[in-house]
Amino acid sequence: MGEKKKKKAIVLLSGGMDSAVLLFLVKKQNYSINTLVFDYSQKHRKEITAAANLSSLVGADHLYLKLNLPWSNSSLISPKKRVPKKKTPGVPSTYVSARNIIFLSYAVSYAENVKANSIFIGAHTLDYSGYPDCRKNFLDAFAKAINLGIAGDRVNIRYPFLKKGKREIIEMGMKLGVPFELTWSCYLGGRKPCLKCDSCRFRTRAFSQLGIKDPLFKK
Amino acid sequence: MGEKKKKKAIVLLSGGMDSAVLLFLVKKQNYSINTLVFDYSQKHRKEITAAANLSSLVGADHLYLKLNLPWSNSSLISPKKRVPKKKTPGVPSTYVSARNIIFLSYAVSYAENVKANSIFIGAHTLDYSGYPDCRKNFLDAFAKAINLGIAGDRVNIRYPFLKKGKREIIEMGMKLGVPFELTWSCYLGGRKPCLKCDSCRFRTRAFSQLGIKDPLFKK
Repeated sequence: MGEKKKKKAIVLLSGGMDSAVLLFLVKKQNYSINTLVFDYSQKHRKEITAAANLSSLVGADHLYLKLNLPWSNSSLISPKKRVPKKKTPGVPSTYVSARNIIFLSYAVSYAENVKANSIFIGAHTLDYSGYPDCRKNFLDAFAKAINLGIAGDRVNIRYPFLKKGKREIIEMGMKLGVPFELTWSCYLGGRKPCLKCDSCRFRTRAFSQLGIKDPLFKK
Repeated sequence: MGEKKKKKAIVLLSGGMDSAVLLFLVKKQNYSINTLVFDYSQKHRKEITAAANLSSLVGADHLYLKLNLPWSNSSLISPKKRVPKKKTPGVPSTYVSARNIIFLSYAVSYAENVKANSIFIGAHTLDYSGYPDCRKNFLDAFAKAINLGIAGDRVNIRYPFLKKGKREIIEMGMKLGVPFELTWSCYLGGRKPCLKCDSCRFRTRAFSQLGIKDPLFKK
């Protein structure tokens, strides 16, 4: 045979900027990639479409899963709540309880079945909304737990962006040739990003600090 | 007000014998109960119906969730595989990768939203099929991890049956008045239990060792 078998990875993809850069980074590292995209009843499908497009660009095996979190009162899900258009103190209303815990649990099951040794997640704690399931101590403890709970080979949870800021992530993405115009960050699903929600604000601030025009607006 | 507010618990209910006894035990401990029942595309719905009946008997708030594990090759799910009718060495083909990891993740999200401080799971490691996500070291590590990943109050994972055998669980159930005739253990969904799969064998052995006729067969 001669050819070394490719390493296999699950990439948790949202369609946003961070996980898009992550996807291209993992691709560069020569993994065979399975992307996992969740529809947890967000108020729009724009990021899900973005995730599908990005997956197909890098030739990843793309899997889309619909989840049901009927109890959630997150403003990303509940029709009774509006996504805030300015910074709010404490844990924001966009928080979806245990979202990454659930995403990673599915990824572990998927990884064990397709024999992937790594799960990549774009979590980071600079320029972020303060979600507790994005923090290093959670991710490390979770990795430890799941490896006690599966029958197959060790699965590593990798979070290369954890200590990176949005600016660094964008710079890395520019080098990797990430088509930022195909990503979607806004929590709302309008024709154009609202530019006011947390997610828009973090993105536009980073692009403007870098003196780069966000390719999303060049279209 | 005068009246002390009831403690609230999520009970993971399968419709089988163990979680039925667990449900009645938690009820006796005076919790207000939310049962969480998963349909992960098992080959039959008998245990799901059983879970709904049991929930309603104890006046629990019952929630049924459909999950999708398209990658699973477990013989409980895959139409290409048969549930084994005798003991097999190693991890059995009925193993669903990360099943309890996924179940518990949903339960954590649910618990945080309904402000329940406890999640009860009927896992035990005597008379069981060797699933790694039923073991104490996994459950403890998982509890530690999730409490680093949520924004709300601490959520405890409780597994009162961990070191109990099926016989002890049945004896406890008899004292608690559990209607075993309403539970369903068989991995298959026939009119009657197959009596050959792991789940049937553990159940019938325990009842026969106790010299009790399984109420399921008295009907």
